[in-house]
Amino acid sequence: MKKDDCIFCKIANGAIPSATVYEDEAFRVILDIAPAAKGHALILPKEHYDNLWELGQEEAEKVMSIAAKVSKAQKAALDCDGVNVLQNNGVAAGQTVFHFHMHLIPRYDNDNVMIPWNTLSYEDGEAMDVCEKIKTAMK
Amino acid sequence: MKKDDCIFCKIANGAIPSATVYEDEAFRVILDIAPAAKGHALILPKEHYDNLWELGQEEAEKVMSIAAKVSKAQKAALDCDGVNVLQNNGVAAGQTVFHFHMHLIPRYDNDNVMIPWNTLSYEDGEAMDVCEKIKTAMK
Repeated sequence: MKKDDCIFCKIANGAIPSATVYEDEAFRVILDIAPAAKGHALILPKEHYDNLWELGQEEAEKVMSIAAKVSKAQKAALDCDGVNVLQNNGVAAGQTVFHFHMHLIPRYDNDNVMIPWNTLSYEDGEAMDVCEKIKTAMK
Repeated sequence: MKKDDCIFCKIANGAIPSATVYEDEAFRVILDIAPAAKGHALILPKEHYDNLWELGQEEAEKVMSIAAKVSKAQKAALDCDGVNVLQNNGVAAGQTVFHFHMHLIPRYDNDNVMIPWNTLSYEDGEAMDVCEKIKTAMK
């Protein structure tokens, strides 16, 4: 399904032009127009899914192979030293367009593009409690 | 293949115990011991691959379905508002253990766990030049 008011539906399906680095029957990969680094790409499914929790099974099976293919090409073409794969779900996670998309961000030594997070620690036994909660929610 | 000196090979294959939230024949999903947020999980293939560029085809096809499954459970179990999926390749991208892993980071409104990047812009025509370079490298 496509959503009429979704800009990424329009871009993925070619109704709005984009700098397209890859396309197949289910996906279009474009350059982000407001990149974290030049060559920053977005993998967009042509069907509309708000986020990872709604992503179709077929697309879930294909998306990381496309990420591997495009990120290898970013490395070769841009001579970058690394690539971040980032996929945000929910406003709290920084998602701003509510059509599933995966960022592929070229990185260079000491570019300071993304700052690593601060780490927390668990109290004794707390990690196992959290682990059990998540396992139970999967049943 | 497993790598003798790889800590994630040992964890993924059960030689080192971990808080395991999910396991199948090809993957183990554990809680990160130095989490960005409580419930922060890592998806580890049991086979050794340094990064996404080396990831096996079978694992590439399965990893996002596992990410969907576990992140849905994080949302249900932890009542988080969002989840970041992050997978770093290369020292420049913040990779510190050189065995492919995918982070699933629970997020809450205004938690400031990960700070969005600053954006750049392209000069006229520059995006299409970068796009062509990446496309050419994929041929």
